[in-house]
Amino acid sequence: MPLRLSDLFLRTLRDNPADAEVASHQLLVRAGYIRRAAPGVYSWLPLGIKVLRKLEAIVREEMDRIGAQEIHLPALLPKEPYEASGRWEDYGDNIFRLQDRKGADYLLAPTHEELFTLLVKDFYTSYKDLPVSLYQIQTKYRDEARPRAGLLRGREFIMKDSYSFCLSEEDQRAAYDAHRAAYLRIFERLGLEVVPVDAVSGAMGGSASEEFLFPSSVGEDTFVESDGGYRANVEAVTTVVPAAIDHSDLPPAEVHHTPGTNTIETLVAAANENHARADRAWTAADTLKNVVIAVVMPDGERRVAVIAVPGDRDVDLKRVEATVGEHLGAAGEVTVEAATSEDLESHPLLVRGYIGPGLELEHPVLGAEGATGIPYLVDPRVVSGTSWITGANHRDQHVFGLVAGRDFTWDGVIESVVVKEGDPAPDGSGPLRTRRGIELGHIFHLGKRYAEALGLQVLDVNGKLATVTMGSYGFGVTRVLAAIAEANNDERGLVWPGSIAPADVHVVATGKDPAIGEAAETLVAALEVEGISVMFDDRPKVSPGVKFSDAELLGVPTLVVVGRGLADGMIELKDRRSGEAEQVPVDGAVTAIVERVSSLR
Amino acid sequence: MPLRLSDLFLRTLRDNPADAEVASHQLLVRAGYIRRAAPGVYSWLPLGIKVLRKLEAIVREEMDRIGAQEIHLPALLPKEPYEASGRWEDYGDNIFRLQDRKGADYLLAPTHEELFTLLVKDFYTSYKDLPVSLYQIQTKYRDEARPRAGLLRGREFIMKDSYSFCLSEEDQRAAYDAHRAAYLRIFERLGLEVVPVDAVSGAMGGSASEEFLFPSSVGEDTFVESDGGYRANVEAVTTVVPAAIDHSDLPPAEVHHTPGTNTIETLVAAANENHARADRAWTAADTLKNVVIAVVMPDGERRVAVIAVPGDRDVDLKRVEATVGEHLGAAGEVTVEAATSEDLESHPLLVRGYIGPGLELEHPVLGAEGATGIPYLVDPRVVSGTSWITGANHRDQHVFGLVAGRDFTWDGVIESVVVKEGDPAPDGSGPLRTRRGIELGHIFHLGKRYAEALGLQVLDVNGKLATVTMGSYGFGVTRVLAAIAEANNDERGLVWPGSIAPADVHVVATGKDPAIGEAAETLVAALEVEGISVMFDDRPKVSPGVKFSDAELLGVPTLVVVGRGLADGMIELKDRRSGEAEQVPVDGAVTAIVERVSSLR
Repeated sequence: MPLRLSDLFLRTLRDNPADAEVASHQLLVRAGYIRRAAPGVYSWLPLGIKVLRKLEAIVREEMDRIGAQEIHLPALLPKEPYEASGRWEDYGDNIFRLQDRKGADYLLAPTHEELFTLLVKDFYTSYKDLPVSLYQIQTKYRDEARPRAGLLRGREFIMKDSYSFCLSEEDQRAAYDAHRAAYLRIFERLGLEVVPVDAVSGAMGGSASEEFLFPSSVGEDTFVESDGGYRANVEAVTTVVPAAIDHSDLPPAEVHHTPGTNTIETLVAAANENHARADRAWTAADTLKNVVIAVVMPDGERRVAVIAVPGDRDVDLKRVEATVGEHLGAAGEVTVEAATSEDLESHPLLVRGYIGPGLELEHPVLGAEGATGIPYLVDPRVVSGTSWITGANHRDQHVFGLVAGRDFTWDGVIESVVVKEGDPAPDGSGPLRTRRGIELGHIFHLGKRYAEALGLQVLDVNGKLATVTMGSYGFGVTRVLAAIAEANNDERGLVWPGSIAPADVHVVATGKDPAIGEAAETLVAALEVEGISVMFDDRPKVSPGVKFSDAELLGVPTLVVVGRGLADGMIELKDRRSGEAEQVPVDGAVTAIVERVSSLR
Repeated sequence: MPLRLSDLFLRTLRDNPADAEVASHQLLVRAGYIRRAAPGVYSWLPLGIKVLRKLEAIVREEMDRIGAQEIHLPALLPKEPYEASGRWEDYGDNIFRLQDRKGADYLLAPTHEELFTLLVKDFYTSYKDLPVSLYQIQTKYRDEARPRAGLLRGREFIMKDSYSFCLSEEDQRAAYDAHRAAYLRIFERLGLEVVPVDAVSGAMGGSASEEFLFPSSVGEDTFVESDGGYRANVEAVTTVVPAAIDHSDLPPAEVHHTPGTNTIETLVAAANENHARADRAWTAADTLKNVVIAVVMPDGERRVAVIAVPGDRDVDLKRVEATVGEHLGAAGEVTVEAATSEDLESHPLLVRGYIGPGLELEHPVLGAEGATGIPYLVDPRVVSGTSWITGANHRDQHVFGLVAGRDFTWDGVIESVVVKEGDPAPDGSGPLRTRRGIELGHIFHLGKRYAEALGLQVLDVNGKLATVTMGSYGFGVTRVLAAIAEANNDERGLVWPGSIAPADVHVVATGKDPAIGEAAETLVAALEVEGISVMFDDRPKVSPGVKFSDAELLGVPTLVVVGRGLADGMIELKDRRSGEAEQVPVDGAVTAIVERVSSLR
């Protein structure tokens, strides 16, 4: 049956909703695909659900093709498995928690590693049962601090998540590669140019992972790429570490009075004015910036740490958060914040604006033997033999020529700085460019973290219990739909790719001649017989102008106009994307439309 | 691709799970279709999800056929619309409530009247837009006090719910009838013999409704039927009201000392012993039983009421709950409980075991002018002129020959008694039989309750604002699946109807001859080409006995055995339901199987 606009539950809007800032959000609401029900929570209207189901079908086909088996787990889950994995705590405010009438704790699952692991544990006991990959397409929940951009960051959303269970690393690698290939096929079928980038795994606790990013200025992720083909999320970029420098001939460090230089900018200016060197001017890259951070440990304890980076770099707290826990011996997730005045006051040896890794070498303030006991972590560029201008831990004093490895030590090396345009790619493939992107998928080698936490072991070929290795593969179904809308629109509305359009063609009947209405009905019926899905604007009292502008807003790829040309035996086929129109004889119209639709699907 | 048991994520269980008491629960778990994740919360495994999706597709087809349009609303919803309709309070402990990180109240929706109403209000403004019917197939949540019987009463479950919006009663009647017909078609396609019965609408606040019950001893609903075709939920049965009796010749009432008669049984015995009448013995039906109840009003106030019924009948508090609120002027849902000692103590005129509607006629304790002010509601059988033995409101005293309408009055008439086998059908179609059933669907004329509460009005044909009339139609998808399993099983396992079986045929290869395996593979490939879906037991090291018992447990309707007969060019087709087997030549096997499957689908 055609989608008749005379009946369809639809209202198109002329204006963008007040809360919508990105094109996909604006257009999906204006064209009546979705509607806001609460912050980050959307209703799917008739056209929206059609597009969504088509997208899900493509995902399902490609998951089935790689032998993954579909199941469906509850969204409402008891606390216990998440407590066993440590994520009940780790998620903090980011999940919805609730209690049932008996006071038992539940959550609305944001992802399902624990339940899949327990299910395989329940069912399988032997290496002969493995490998197995399972997936679901399911509603997920996250209590986002800032839901935004419509479907791009919601609190109730649909994901495809799969999990692979293997006994060998080779099998796990094969399952990962199969998912990677499936994702690339899905994006190809959707006509979406998505780039896989190296990623850090963050909260998931994995050992290797890639994100699938759709490059877009409205994306929340930043990634880098080089001409030589290197691509990574900025959080995953590693620094090209310079070789250590022989420091045996370097002069000793000297302390200088540097009044009013509690910023890098004023410090560099003062250095050039009062302590100029012969060969070249001092720059921010010659200074060592010591950034105090506060780390909230898994048990709630607040600890202070200092991160030292070259003065021309900024610290990215999100990157720090990903790995600083390891340096501090944390058992789970940590949160990182900028240090407050209270944090600093509790360590009076640290003088704000003049912090450094210690001048009096027998009593350093910071560093492996530092008097404060504060962990001191440095950027990979701070290699042995590099010489720095840095704080002397006294107001209005800096030390010049402080040499790493000679005059100060550190507790660890950490990737923490904001990656900059022009930084070298770690694989030597040239300078990096930075771009914004929307994360549409994320695939992980999880390793044994969940299998160990939940006791998933099977008998190996020698009859011994072995812990299973896992992979986890997320695909944001509703977010992908939004990304498709971001990628396919113009000033007049949406332009769906044929693979997920709500209909193959949009037939518009214009004019009051009853012969036009009849010809349109005949054409629609003939198209449906051929398996062409039709949206049919049969509204009797709506002007051609409104019908055309609605058709352009709704975004069906091919517009078929039955109107004035009919008197000459012609109808018009119009391509929504290019706007190109073609007159075809009524008699051959079905064949012409079938051909065009087949090429677009 | 066939479902190969060598790969399928499946483990069949020999024994029933400890918590499973009904056949559908036992077998769906044992055959690996579902698995418990929490009380009343289930995971769907590969075979389960296949059956579920087929069932959903049938529901979707029949809803589309009647012109209902599919949408999909969130499960996580803000409090406000439910507060406007009064259901945020009404649901009490029966819904899951939660708060987001900002402390805003949310619920997991048990049903969606409010949101559908608001959506139509958002989109439509004119009578020209109506009627419209919208539906969704969606996960619902209810915090059941006693989740039980697997999928039959869960806390997370799938429902199809639809809503119709009309401006005239005729249109609303047509939408109701269309849904009724669609439900009957769905049940017919599923081979499920379901009976529609009259129902009271309870918490939904409607004016007329029917339930679709599947007769089953494990059902929680009781319905009645007569030979003449009357069918109703017991809660909806109305009493056949006797004609009023002329009481002008009746003797005056007399009080008798009746020590130790605070039960109907002891009262009747004492009456026959000490106050025997000439024509026949006193029975419980001659006494008037006055039952004290406590009604918790919508605002939390606890009120006491008395319900009078013939002494041979029991009061059903659930029936009372459905309508007592109206008598007490309640603005919303009320809860009814048996009265406690405290309730009685607060009304010293009521003497437990000896309560009656007043002896001293100028100062009645109960009734329209009663001194206690307690609402006094009577069974429809208590018509004017009926004469009763009842309490005299003094310890050890009863009054004999107290005549309704002469000696006492009442505040209202209420349907409150437990319907009994043999009661007359209200339509005169004969005595009633009682049966148990599982409620699979429920259709309501909702009237204007939600439209009024949420302000859904459109311009009528005269350009005046008119409030919309609604219908609500529920269909328990996962519960229907369980009912199908209840209706289709034997001691060996499940027996799926062809319309929703996880596969059309189950091919079993037995024996170690490689020719058998090859022939089975060839057959499976040929069947798939013909569009027959195949479950294929290709497990190399599993005995024929285990393969056959698994096949019977899993319940695919047709079993195809490729085994010893192959030497003679024959394979076996076996009907899972009847057990009848047929030998067919390998060469004609595909044709024979296609024919059989077509007849079963």
